[in-house]
Amino acid sequence: MVNRIFFILTIIGVPISVIGSYLHWNEVVLFIIYCITIIALAGIIGRATESLAILAGPRIGGLLNATFGNAVELIISLFALQAGLVEVVLASLTGSVIGNLLLVGGLSFFTGGLKYKRQNFNVYDARHNSGLLIFAIVLAFVIPEIFSMDMNLDRTMTLSIGVSIILMILYLAALFFKLVTHRGVYAKEQEKKEEEHEEAEWSKGKATLILLLATVAVAYISEHLVHTFETVGQKFGWSDLFIGIIVVAIVGNAAEHASAVVMAYKNKIGVSVEIAIGSSLQVAMFVSPLLVISSLFMNYQMPLVFSFPELIAMITSVFLTVSITGDGDTNWFEGLTLLCAYFIMAIGFYLL
Amino acid sequence: MVNRIFFILTIIGVPISVIGSYLHWNEVVLFIIYCITIIALAGIIGRATESLAILAGPRIGGLLNATFGNAVELIISLFALQAGLVEVVLASLTGSVIGNLLLVGGLSFFTGGLKYKRQNFNVYDARHNSGLLIFAIVLAFVIPEIFSMDMNLDRTMTLSIGVSIILMILYLAALFFKLVTHRGVYAKEQEKKEEEHEEAEWSKGKATLILLLATVAVAYISEHLVHTFETVGQKFGWSDLFIGIIVVAIVGNAAEHASAVVMAYKNKIGVSVEIAIGSSLQVAMFVSPLLVISSLFMNYQMPLVFSFPELIAMITSVFLTVSITGDGDTNWFEGLTLLCAYFIMAIGFYLL
Amino acid sequence: MVNRIFFILTIIGVPISVIGSYLHWNEVVLFIIYCITIIALAGIIGRATESLAILAGPRIGGLLNATFGNAVELIISLFALQAGLVEVVLASLTGSVIGNLLLVGGLSFFTGGLKYKRQNFNVYDARHNSGLLIFAIVLAFVIPEIFSMDMNLDRTMTLSIGVSIILMILYLAALFFKLVTHRGVYAKEQEKKEEEHEEAEWSKGKATLILLLATVAVAYISEHLVHTFETVGQKFGWSDLFIGIIVVAIVGNAAEHASAVVMAYKNKIGVSVEIAIGSSLQVAMFVSPLLVISSLFMNYQMPLVFSFPELIAMITSVFLTVSITGDGDTNWFEGLTLLCAYFIMAIGFYLL
Repeated sequence: MVNRIFFILTIIGVPISVIGSYLHWNEVVLFIIYCITIIALAGIIGRATESLAILAGPRIGGLLNATFGNAVELIISLFALQAGLVEVVLASLTGSVIGNLLLVGGLSFFTGGLKYKRQNFNVYDARHNSGLLIFAIVLAFVIPEIFSMDMNLDRTMTLSIGVSIILMILYLAALFFKLVTHRGVYAKEQEKKEEEHEEAEWSKGKATLILLLATVAVAYISEHLVHTFETVGQKFGWSDLFIGIIVVAIVGNAAEHASAVVMAYKNKIGVSVEIAIGSSLQVAMFVSPLLVISSLFMNYQMPLVFSFPELIAMITSVFLTVSITGDGDTNWFEGLTLLCAYFIMAIGFYLL
Repeated sequence: MVNRIFFILTIIGVPISVIGSYLHWNEVVLFIIYCITIIALAGIIGRATESLAILAGPRIGGLLNATFGNAVELIISLFALQAGLVEVVLASLTGSVIGNLLLVGGLSFFTGGLKYKRQNFNVYDARHNSGLLIFAIVLAFVIPEIFSMDMNLDRTMTLSIGVSIILMILYLAALFFKLVTHRGVYAKEQEKKEEEHEEAEWSKGKATLILLLATVAVAYISEHLVHTFETVGQKFGWSDLFIGIIVVAIVGNAAEHASAVVMAYKNKIGVSVEIAIGSSLQVAMFVSPLLVISSLFMNYQMPLVFSFPELIAMITSVFLTVSITGDGDTNWFEGLTLLCAYFIMAIGFYLL
Repeated sequence: MVNRIFFILTIIGVPISVIGSYLHWNEVVLFIIYCITIIALAGIIGRATESLAILAGPRIGGLLNATFGNAVELIISLFALQAGLVEVVLASLTGSVIGNLLLVGGLSFFTGGLKYKRQNFNVYDARHNSGLLIFAIVLAFVIPEIFSMDMNLDRTMTLSIGVSIILMILYLAALFFKLVTHRGVYAKEQEKKEEEHEEAEWSKGKATLILLLATVAVAYISEHLVHTFETVGQKFGWSDLFIGIIVVAIVGNAAEHASAVVMAYKNKIGVSVEIAIGSSLQVAMFVSPLLVISSLFMNYQMPLVFSFPELIAMITSVFLTVSITGDGDTNWFEGLTLLCAYFIMAIGFYLL
């Protein structure tokens, strides 16, 4: 059903986006059209990736999910970077991390918790993810922030690149750990059985074609989207920061958000957690470093140095998430706590 | 026994306080009389609230405890706020949080640990509390602090009010969670039985009357107490900060402190933890936001922005408490660790 | 075998060090000779201490290990302090803490994990250590740092001494807790048996003599070592900070590092953890405060105030270690995570 809506929105949205940008419609109207179309396209990319992942088996499939999972966000960010909007990119990375942890996680736990008194997931996965969140955000993002205070830009970029390479190496190592050396080692009996039952929605050829077309469409629209930010910001009184953190992050992740909440409602809270925390880790350990390194070949270099409010927002989100997910048990109140945290940050970034 | 001492101190202390303030006795003498009387009155208010709570059943009772639990502190703070002592109020909130976590928690674990090698309490309660401590102090207190650095006072107040409202909503939701939707869900068998055995000390009418009279007395004395701070500070070389953090916080919480330690000695360490962490949460999620909002109707507005040392003291206290209580197992050494942390902070605030 | 190598290196290294320093050889050459000789001597001191500890029984033995465990580092630091290299000393303390947690811990988990899929250790020990790490580094090191921002040097020293005394008291209390009141209380059955099987390598007289001679030799060489730092720093473009954090810390702890990794490979991961975290705690709670207090009797006073990058490096290392060791289960990936964290910091300090 959701799938069909995404398709209809895409079939309508893509041509309208092309026509609208060609005819220079009102930028606020275009901004809205672009956003809706990208949300639909992100949903389709997600489905296509999933189909390919199932067909390719768990190892290559895991790799596919880990690479294309945040493709939309990566594409938008690349175009924003090329347009020199370094601060918007950093903001959208921040928004993606806190949005996934607090908004997606919170909505999932809350919705699932309305139906079930307690929901459980594998506590080893929770701890594995906690360790990586603390590594990536509390350590690897904080060190360049603090150390760069006493550095010139050259050294800051050198440090950023060093940290980025290490983040990507550890991200690949985490995949290797999860998919090869320790696959199933920490799983409960029941989970091992469940893994079998999935079936691909589309054939390999169809999925690849859809993935390709949707990605091209996202790229096209993203390029135009980033140029509407200035007008939209002036119109609504939104800062670049707010657009990056709340708007771009929500648009780039809406499809994922939806499926996490659906999974929670089906009592597959483990999948919701995997989406929420997994996406955050992907943004922190794969998308962010890739953008830092990509920026070397562009006109605007992007060091891995967030603004202080962004960093604090991410760090406190991580500590809250680690504390709440650490016991592998969730309920509606834990979901509400995460949502309240998100609202506090949204107010804060709006007022900045 | 303790109860009787409180009564005697009240019966002597209240009239002397009235006479002393009327005759303008030496302010240092008055300060001491006020403090002792308030400690005794706080003890009586605690007993009256408990009686009413037992008579009203667990749901309304829980609500009563959650509202009147820090009534004394709230009253003192309101009068201090009216007198323009914004910094003293923020300091006393800080002192209350760290005093409850480190001093009450520490004394309880240490005293209990001298008698018992290991004491246990419900690990789910510990995690629930840990999540809220991290939400309220590490997240909800830090965000306004950091974000307000780049804001004017107007926006800082707007953010403070937003955060305050969210804190109070989540506090009420936590009560709803604990008393209604998940009552007993996370309890062990043994605990469910224990819950029955309590009996109210006073009848409903008597308890209400006592509560009313004691509250009026506290209000009267508090109003005079806050005006002695300046003289006392000059006399002893104490800063406003030190008076707020150490003196006011101890006076406002002494009665609670005593009962937490008594409970630990009776091997009811779960009750001690509930008092220590519960009071901290109440101060952070109910008293603090209420004061911020109340300040809107006064001459001096109070943003939810602590001084940097205050915030760091609270955050580090939370991390230490979460780490030490996280396993639901305590001993004398864990108590001593908390006490040592309190001494470090006391020295720090004294020297500031 | 390793033992024999240490002996040969010592027998060659000590006389060459004496001759070289007497004849004023090239300082870079001397620096290398000194470093190698000290590593070997540290190994021998470790062996002698262990023999004495076994002969003295668990209580006195634990005390011996806790006092002499970082003797080499203490001696180097004392001479560096006397030479006025306060920043090098603080840097070497930092380097020791992060080196033990991330490098020793990381190498142990990684090496052990290559041979065993999962390795386990006592989860109560892990939590006990976590609490102390958070107490010592996140709380006791942060408070003087933040509070001293608003203090003059006199008050900063007073605060530093207060914190130092409290750290040492708690360190002694921790020994008392572990060796006397709660010995074996938290141990698993199996562990209690294992404790018996150790045998001393050397007799009491021999061990004492060796300990004495090696300590004198370390002292002699350390005094000369600290005077080569300036030349070496200029030659290789290393800052004082980098020499302190990476070089001195590795030289002072190399022997311990080796035995932690060997233990992990023998599947005694609990011993590795004890060495890694135990040494960090010893540096933070015993060596650091002892140096602060010792500095009172020297020309250069050393407050317990690290540079901001140093403090952040230690705090983030603690959070990562606490998160990774909290479940008492390790694997190669957790080791790699710690190592990656160390590399990030090494790059950062190199570029500072």
